[in-house]
Amino acid sequence: MLIHPDRLFPAEPDTRKIARTIYEHVRALPLVSPHGHTQAAWFAKNEPFPDPAKLFVQPDHYVYRMLYSQGVSLEDLEIGQPELKDARKVWRIFARHYYLFRGTPTRLWLDFAFQELFGLNERLSERTADLYFDTISEKLRTSEFLPRALYERFCLEVLATTDSPLDPLADHKAIRNSGWKARILPTFRPDAVVDPEFAGFSQNIAKLGEQTGEDTSSWAGYLKALRIARERFRSLGCTATDHGHPTARTANLSPKEASDLFTRVLARASDARDHDLFRAQMLTEMARMSLDDGLVMQIHPGSARNHNRQLYQRYGRDIGADIPTATNYVDALRPLLDQFGNQRNLTIILFTLDESTYSRELAPLAGHYPCLRLGPPWWFYDSPEGMTRFREQVTETAGFYNTVGFNDDTRAFLSIPARHDVARRTDCAFLARLVAEHRLDEDEAFEVAYDLAYRLVKRAYRLEEARDGA
Amino acid sequence: MLIHPDRLFPAEPDTRKIARTIYEHVRALPLVSPHGHTQAAWFAKNEPFPDPAKLFVQPDHYVYRMLYSQGVSLEDLEIGQPELKDARKVWRIFARHYYLFRGTPTRLWLDFAFQELFGLNERLSERTADLYFDTISEKLRTSEFLPRALYERFCLEVLATTDSPLDPLADHKAIRNSGWKARILPTFRPDAVVDPEFAGFSQNIAKLGEQTGEDTSSWAGYLKALRIARERFRSLGCTATDHGHPTARTANLSPKEASDLFTRVLARASDARDHDLFRAQMLTEMARMSLDDGLVMQIHPGSARNHNRQLYQRYGRDIGADIPTATNYVDALRPLLDQFGNQRNLTIILFTLDESTYSRELAPLAGHYPCLRLGPPWWFYDSPEGMTRFREQVTETAGFYNTVGFNDDTRAFLSIPARHDVARRTDCAFLARLVAEHRLDEDEAFEVAYDLAYRLVKRAYRLEEARDGA
Amino acid sequence: MLIHPDRLFPAEPDTRKIARTIYEHVRALPLVSPHGHTQAAWFAKNEPFPDPAKLFVQPDHYVYRMLYSQGVSLEDLEIGQPELKDARKVWRIFARHYYLFRGTPTRLWLDFAFQELFGLNERLSERTADLYFDTISEKLRTSEFLPRALYERFCLEVLATTDSPLDPLADHKAIRNSGWKARILPTFRPDAVVDPEFAGFSQNIAKLGEQTGEDTSSWAGYLKALRIARERFRSLGCTATDHGHPTARTANLSPKEASDLFTRVLARASDARDHDLFRAQMLTEMARMSLDDGLVMQIHPGSARNHNRQLYQRYGRDIGADIPTATNYVDALRPLLDQFGNQRNLTIILFTLDESTYSRELAPLAGHYPCLRLGPPWWFYDSPEGMTRFREQVTETAGFYNTVGFNDDTRAFLSIPARHDVARRTDCAFLARLVAEHRLDEDEAFEVAYDLAYRLVKRAYRLEEARDGA
Repeated sequence: MLIHPDRLFPAEPDTRKIARTIYEHVRALPLVSPHGHTQAAWFAKNEPFPDPAKLFVQPDHYVYRMLYSQGVSLEDLEIGQPELKDARKVWRIFARHYYLFRGTPTRLWLDFAFQELFGLNERLSERTADLYFDTISEKLRTSEFLPRALYERFCLEVLATTDSPLDPLADHKAIRNSGWKARILPTFRPDAVVDPEFAGFSQNIAKLGEQTGEDTSSWAGYLKALRIARERFRSLGCTATDHGHPTARTANLSPKEASDLFTRVLARASDARDHDLFRAQMLTEMARMSLDDGLVMQIHPGSARNHNRQLYQRYGRDIGADIPTATNYVDALRPLLDQFGNQRNLTIILFTLDESTYSRELAPLAGHYPCLRLGPPWWFYDSPEGMTRFREQVTETAGFYNTVGFNDDTRAFLSIPARHDVARRTDCAFLARLVAEHRLDEDEAFEVAYDLAYRLVKRAYRLEEARDGA
Repeated sequence: MLIHPDRLFPAEPDTRKIARTIYEHVRALPLVSPHGHTQAAWFAKNEPFPDPAKLFVQPDHYVYRMLYSQGVSLEDLEIGQPELKDARKVWRIFARHYYLFRGTPTRLWLDFAFQELFGLNERLSERTADLYFDTISEKLRTSEFLPRALYERFCLEVLATTDSPLDPLADHKAIRNSGWKARILPTFRPDAVVDPEFAGFSQNIAKLGEQTGEDTSSWAGYLKALRIARERFRSLGCTATDHGHPTARTANLSPKEASDLFTRVLARASDARDHDLFRAQMLTEMARMSLDDGLVMQIHPGSARNHNRQLYQRYGRDIGADIPTATNYVDALRPLLDQFGNQRNLTIILFTLDESTYSRELAPLAGHYPCLRLGPPWWFYDSPEGMTRFREQVTETAGFYNTVGFNDDTRAFLSIPARHDVARRTDCAFLARLVAEHRLDEDEAFEVAYDLAYRLVKRAYRLEEARDGA
Repeated sequence: MLIHPDRLFPAEPDTRKIARTIYEHVRALPLVSPHGHTQAAWFAKNEPFPDPAKLFVQPDHYVYRMLYSQGVSLEDLEIGQPELKDARKVWRIFARHYYLFRGTPTRLWLDFAFQELFGLNERLSERTADLYFDTISEKLRTSEFLPRALYERFCLEVLATTDSPLDPLADHKAIRNSGWKARILPTFRPDAVVDPEFAGFSQNIAKLGEQTGEDTSSWAGYLKALRIARERFRSLGCTATDHGHPTARTANLSPKEASDLFTRVLARASDARDHDLFRAQMLTEMARMSLDDGLVMQIHPGSARNHNRQLYQRYGRDIGADIPTATNYVDALRPLLDQFGNQRNLTIILFTLDESTYSRELAPLAGHYPCLRLGPPWWFYDSPEGMTRFREQVTETAGFYNTVGFNDDTRAFLSIPARHDVARRTDCAFLARLVAEHRLDEDEAFEVAYDLAYRLVKRAYRLEEARDGA
């Protein structure tokens, strides 16, 4: 067996028993995935996934960054190639290096998929590489492994994608029009039109103007166009926006100052300081719009993107070379909070790649401001130890109810059940320890586990409310 | 039962048994509370505490910040009202939201008080709200619940308040004159006269001059006046000063520079940089005075006070909206330490709201400089996980004997026994783990537990020495 | 018994059993010590170590910094004295204060040496001080306690010292010429000639010129001289360089800029900014040389050296007053990584004194760049809790195989077996938890434990390759 029924539960027998009992209560709850990077096209087209290497290795920077760090070349892994020349060869390289993932969440996710989806039960290694490749390849050709069948098998209740404001969302429309009863929602991620350093920023804004029929060369027209674009997303069920700025900085300029800044930025008469200020101002503008249209804001700051210059020049972005940086929230969010912090009908979900902020900044902020909630451990911290540290460092100040359940945040569709399972087990392990140490009653732990696995995410992302346009 | 006899002990049976045994050794030791925010007036007047809402909800920002974060309005909680209009209604709101405190220390403290003081043993909830309100209200009217009776019931040996240098300390005098044998001591907290940004700074300094008969318009007279004020506190048993600056910055200006800066600051011809430098200089001045009069210094830096602008404008300070910030000690303390760091008859107790400094800065500093000691986990970290992290991150470098036992630091008088109990249990749990892992002998753990619960606090705060004026 | 056979293993019985089994597998493996501060002269001369105080107290800043922090004077400990006037008196002071080390790694190391090497089994205290002094003194006079005998008894396979580029390495040569079959290697630590703030910098560079026959007044000659000096180290078996800069900053200037900077720095026409930039540039130069000669780079940044001004003036450096500071890697290393980050035949081992960087910066960097590896927990974190945090915070992102095993990093030769033993036990405890929680299979844990204890260090430090000059 690759995965053990008691995995991730504390070893101490009484505590493990409690964890098991709590977990049994939440194990089979539907999966709500309000933030991720799967492709709506998969579900619109419902075509078979290609081979194992294309499925598990090529799109997953968690996988190939580790291989790369140990001297495997990206060329040998055929990273960035639209079609793999020798998928089996890539798979064998991966298999030979599978020991590198010992102790990592990637190993947990993959073993889960290998066993639960493909019925494999001997560890992946050089010796079993071909057995894996053949078994997985064969299954992928069956109807049970088509995207829609997997969506249903995974008990997904909601699956959100992440989309540019310029995206026509044709795949989302196609899914709706197909009559298939799934809830696949777009998320409004406006980097392309709010970050002056985004490739093609000015053209993007022009295009936004065309799409919305607004004059986006003016500040007022630009804001109007954004509102229209948000409304278009909302009409397809979107409940949230997402913001991946380098920092959490916000600003609250006067309309005149903001308008002047916009003009400067659009005319490319701006410098890095202007760009940073513009992004900061746009967070506050987005909050203002959210107060009107009800979209929940997600802020994902603190990643130094494309840290590896040579790889970026050769392969472009998202190549496994984004590195976290120290992130400040307490000063950065102040302008926005000064304006909207006490609004009870605004929800801003904060994420971090700097764990030192959990207890120092994030829990105290979320434990006070009505508009703030804490997103789950993100990216490198989407892991058993990461989640445990999050609960240990956040709960005593912010409680459980200022957190929002789990995000799988994945590009790897097949890892979704595994990722939710790791989160549920880790939360149950944490709760079991509280119960075993008489810090929480068992009936309360059941309720909290249910809330963390299912109820809080639906509430925070406003998925409980009636489906727009559905 | 609300609280379990084994609460906060590790679940592993052998380790739990060790923890129990160690705890039994310290459970009933007298409480020494050298730093807190209770009111001397309570003990001077010895009048009954009012209703449950006024006692448990209104003064406790730990409680209402959590309620506020989840959308309860401060108006509904009647925060800031001198008299509650509908205490029962406030209590019911609190009871209905009691589940929010799951996993927080507030829950541990409250359950302790509910059960141990008021004999309640069913969990607080909407259903039991009135039972609680009536039971507590009734008990509060009895003589056993008068402040002095509670002080004795709590086995308090020392209780320090926190006081302005301008405070006449009439209540402290009244307690002494009453003949009641309790040791309630003032603490010298000079913000009002050393922080140029404190409301009414210049007038405060003038008032200090009047009270001490010194010309506080000159640097020399000002310093002299501070010495006299400290002496007045000392005559009422005070053994410590307390300093709550935004940062830990110290300075060591020449007398001429300091005098010029004082003149500028007093004339309001100063800017934020001057204010910061003046506070920094005053820490060094306070250390110099401590070398003469023996008062122990406490430094509590790193809180961004009144972060919520709107609430500050409406309710003023201490409204649950102070947020920690990243804090530097290694550079900030250097000027003071350059001057006085090797003095063995000076004690400076350092606190932090930035846990990343425990192992990086505070333990290495306290593990070297003879004048430095580490205060217990403060504010958001006055909690089982916070205390455990403190011991885990501090002990290996600074040992146990560069720490100073526990501070309850509370405005909520009734939480004092619970808070000390949580600290004792958590330390015993930590020690039990060391014993179970054969990192410490059991006889040593007994001694350390006693020291952490009782001996170190008395030594660090110089409470072992003869009582001044008593 | 001072040390228990199950020390440092988790208390939970099943997990402890797993830890024991894994540990049994690595317990007796040879010790590889690729980074430390022992003296080659000890092994060249092979003379008896002096008395217990000179051996255990005087050279060990871990020991006397703790005593000093609690008011013991350095004069009473005869720190800095070449000959002890009253070694027994010093020893008695140490013994009387031995309780201060409860919960520290120093206690674990010392108890190990006392019991395993000297057969003592009653705890050190005022009462047993003389017994210890006499027992240890007597044994130190026997041939079994000569340096070479101890080297063999410790099963050392490799022992690296740390040496200036100006050091003639006469002791290393003498060891080789003696025919004694030990592998004691120098490490190239160029601070004296690459840090403009190092005492005697200009003279050091002139001396480097003399020793290498190069004109070190020119940038080209200086670089050439460094290459020659490295080659001299390599011929005596050196496989690594070591860099202890205040920060991790690197730079990548043009040859012209670098040459101009060198000229300015050498002429003392430079300021602190130049010095910092020069150190930064030299890290990149060292990487360039490493690509040619294969020496592994170690970067040890982030210590605020000589923080205690008064002690520094009186006693000089390395007096226990170096304090960690917040350290940035993600920006600091960028210039070097931009140039050489993707080189697979370069190894740069990163260390830190800022644990907040483990999960935020170091694991993500090492989990991506092929040239980067993570050194073991350093200095204050060379401890059970420190090592546990390292594994918990690093493994999920960087895995085990981007780490390099253990460094004892010690000046205290007799502590070497104890330090390796603590590391092996702590790693086995961590692995046992993964196995008990079904996050790793037991056969894999055996393999990882072996790799962490023995194989990774040999590979990372290139000790597997044929011995140069041997």
